[in-house]
Amino acid sequence: MTVTWETKERPMLKERQDASLPDRVARSAAARREGTVPEVLGWLERRRTEVLFAVERIPFDALDGWSFASETGNLVHRSGRFFTVEGLHVSVGEQPTRAEWHQPIIVQPEVGILGVLAREFDGVLHFLMQAKMEPGNPGLLQLSPTVQATYSNYTKVHKGTAVRYLEYFTDPSRGSVLTDSLQSEHGSWFHRKRNRNIVVETVDPVAEHEDFRWLTLGQIYELLRCDNTVNLDARSALAGLYAPDTPGALHSDTELLSWLAAQRSVTPIRGERVPLAGLPGWKRDSSSVDHEEGLHFRVVALSVQAGNREVTSWTQPLLEPREHGVVAFLTRTVEGVPHVLVRARAEGGFLDAELGPTVQCQPGTYAHLPATDRPPFLDLVRTAAPSRIRFAALLSEEGGRFLNAVSRYLIVEADESDAPFDAPPGFRWVSRDQLAALTQYSHYVSIQARTLLLCLNTLEAAS
Amino acid sequence: MTVTWETKERPMLKERQDASLPDRVARSAAARREGTVPEVLGWLERRRTEVLFAVERIPFDALDGWSFASETGNLVHRSGRFFTVEGLHVSVGEQPTRAEWHQPIIVQPEVGILGVLAREFDGVLHFLMQAKMEPGNPGLLQLSPTVQATYSNYTKVHKGTAVRYLEYFTDPSRGSVLTDSLQSEHGSWFHRKRNRNIVVETVDPVAEHEDFRWLTLGQIYELLRCDNTVNLDARSALAGLYAPDTPGALHSDTELLSWLAAQRSVTPIRGERVPLAGLPGWKRDSSSVDHEEGLHFRVVALSVQAGNREVTSWTQPLLEPREHGVVAFLTRTVEGVPHVLVRARAEGGFLDAELGPTVQCQPGTYAHLPATDRPPFLDLVRTAAPSRIRFAALLSEEGGRFLNAVSRYLIVEADESDAPFDAPPGFRWVSRDQLAALTQYSHYVSIQARTLLLCLNTLEAAS
Repeated sequence: MTVTWETKERPMLKERQDASLPDRVARSAAARREGTVPEVLGWLERRRTEVLFAVERIPFDALDGWSFASETGNLVHRSGRFFTVEGLHVSVGEQPTRAEWHQPIIVQPEVGILGVLAREFDGVLHFLMQAKMEPGNPGLLQLSPTVQATYSNYTKVHKGTAVRYLEYFTDPSRGSVLTDSLQSEHGSWFHRKRNRNIVVETVDPVAEHEDFRWLTLGQIYELLRCDNTVNLDARSALAGLYAPDTPGALHSDTELLSWLAAQRSVTPIRGERVPLAGLPGWKRDSSSVDHEEGLHFRVVALSVQAGNREVTSWTQPLLEPREHGVVAFLTRTVEGVPHVLVRARAEGGFLDAELGPTVQCQPGTYAHLPATDRPPFLDLVRTAAPSRIRFAALLSEEGGRFLNAVSRYLIVEADESDAPFDAPPGFRWVSRDQLAALTQYSHYVSIQARTLLLCLNTLEAAS
Repeated sequence: MTVTWETKERPMLKERQDASLPDRVARSAAARREGTVPEVLGWLERRRTEVLFAVERIPFDALDGWSFASETGNLVHRSGRFFTVEGLHVSVGEQPTRAEWHQPIIVQPEVGILGVLAREFDGVLHFLMQAKMEPGNPGLLQLSPTVQATYSNYTKVHKGTAVRYLEYFTDPSRGSVLTDSLQSEHGSWFHRKRNRNIVVETVDPVAEHEDFRWLTLGQIYELLRCDNTVNLDARSALAGLYAPDTPGALHSDTELLSWLAAQRSVTPIRGERVPLAGLPGWKRDSSSVDHEEGLHFRVVALSVQAGNREVTSWTQPLLEPREHGVVAFLTRTVEGVPHVLVRARAEGGFLDAELGPTVQCQPGTYAHLPATDRPPFLDLVRTAAPSRIRFAALLSEEGGRFLNAVSRYLIVEADESDAPFDAPPGFRWVSRDQLAALTQYSHYVSIQARTLLLCLNTLEAAS
């Protein structure tokens, strides 16, 4: 074959693993600077006042381009693009333990890009973060990835201006990829939505812009501890970057994958799209689609005006949760190796069960129930003594689709008495590094668990 | 915390990777014995004659329990279980390059188990293989996994006898798992079908049975070279077991994953289930559902009588391809490391594009087209000189759902002149070990590519 002479020309093989990346990530995580938090918060506040933002609730019939389709009652855009709000008939598992329900759901089959551009300055990796407005976010403007683009965005369906820095993520020759995978988003609110989570490093000079700023991982971790500051997409994109890879864990990788395969087998998710009109358990009036008992979330409409977004004014539907959520990992350390208690979660919009937080719910849904009927560990994380709380912050979810979707993210130390290593059915202790390694592959680690993984990294960097 | 005293009691961490498994797999792959092939083929032939099998084509109205639903024309079983044959409206990609078509598809949302039981004899891993009848297989009876069970099987929906050895795969305490993951099946014929592919090792004595036999990997590899002998499910389950893990490749793991993420992003697969009745381009008569131009496949009905299956007689629909397929990997060796040319394949029944063979098609579909319109590399693999063909055998697909679905599986040596390392769009050179490592995760390596991976292993073991 021709291989022999090619080999003589130049070695063609490269290392499958980038051996230097863990050190470089760790160095960036350790790089902090006095005053980062007030400085960045000040910058965000300044951009908020410099650019005029106005967000207002409107009735559905004031939506421009959006309407309820005559046959299905689905909420659709006249272009047929962007997204739709439809009904979903979910069944999870097999008889006799199958669970079934109906819910509205956002359907957006195109794959968006959540891209973070990286570059070394003085030998330390920095990440180009954007001050970006999203109408559903508390504070509107949060720290976001360099690029956050739907396919409609970057193919210009809504005729806005070009997405800045997009070329780094669509043209592989512009840099080297540090991590890149399709990941699910909120399975309770999105039907099979996936985004491409990608971090690309460039060695070339990058044009500056007032809405963008280079930060180290350590600086981003500090900001993550501030309420509603680092947006969902930034958390998701950065969760795939991780430093250490300890070889020991409570369960081997094969045992973990086997446990998940078993969970997935017994909880197949069937999500059948059905008309939003007449969806059992849900009702619609002029300005919202609501659960009949006032639970879960509702669908509402907003009008948005903004000076620095791709389009300066528009209207759109959003999904608004009825209360703040609680999202938590219990954590325990085994012979020096941090572990978290994951739960296999089969959400209606998922393809398959994914590894999710120990606790993830809206507590009000269960407020009237006896303790034994509430989600496992919910009471434990809600009543944990401050000394056991390693991380706590209010973080909001995707502000382009969800309105005021805020959860209290917690990392809580547990011990054998309240969270034994012999975990209850559906739960499993997983080392932090096992979870991080799985973020390289699609559909293993849920969006909430990816956020918590980033929160765990802040502990490492701070210690 | 409580960790300190627990550590003193006993170390709780285990290695995440089983360091001894690669050697044990390699030892089993090297273990062959004179006369295996005639002996096993003789055993299969003996079982064929000892157990009475009769398979007969019948018209749809002779199906028992199956009928075309009045509203949709879907072919369904009166129990609502097993599977259905429905219509699928597929679109792949985004405009302006979106491809769309309609096709019948088998819908079977439950997750089956393809389980192989392993045990060491004289220090060599052996695998308990079954002589199993499936009505669609050429020769009916082929070498199959220890257990091949749908959820209906093991929950007894069709009231058959218990599935032998099933307990090893449903009770984790019965052995240790060597590999376990949910994998897709044929994306052109199944709508999002997944099976749990699992190999479990026991150290305990295992009851013998005349339909089962212990074989080494080396013996199974020899049998794989015999036409229509090792069934699809056995190939799929065993493809997850692999020995070496070379650290070098033409592209790094991250580059490979990033390329696949990009492919998946630009070819999102929308598969909308639609009624089989009136499916554009397809027609139905009393005994088959056919493509109007006689291409692709048809849906037919069979009556089956068998002495040793869970139920002794039944009728069922099957999908019958119109001709034999060609499934091939081009292979090249780079500095001693074997690589194959994968193609990202977005099949209508997939969740996402997966890594598939270089060539996978029914050549007759393209026979009337000029060479430039035929699938890339098809002519190359069909006209390759014998000296370049490293592997060739007729292998059949899932015989429980497909009738005479036989493809010629080929591994063909290529060089820079006919298959350059700078691969065409949609293709990528991947090291054998990269592909094998990805079989540990769901939905990365297609069922045909997993079969070819096993065929590649036979070359290693034989050299």
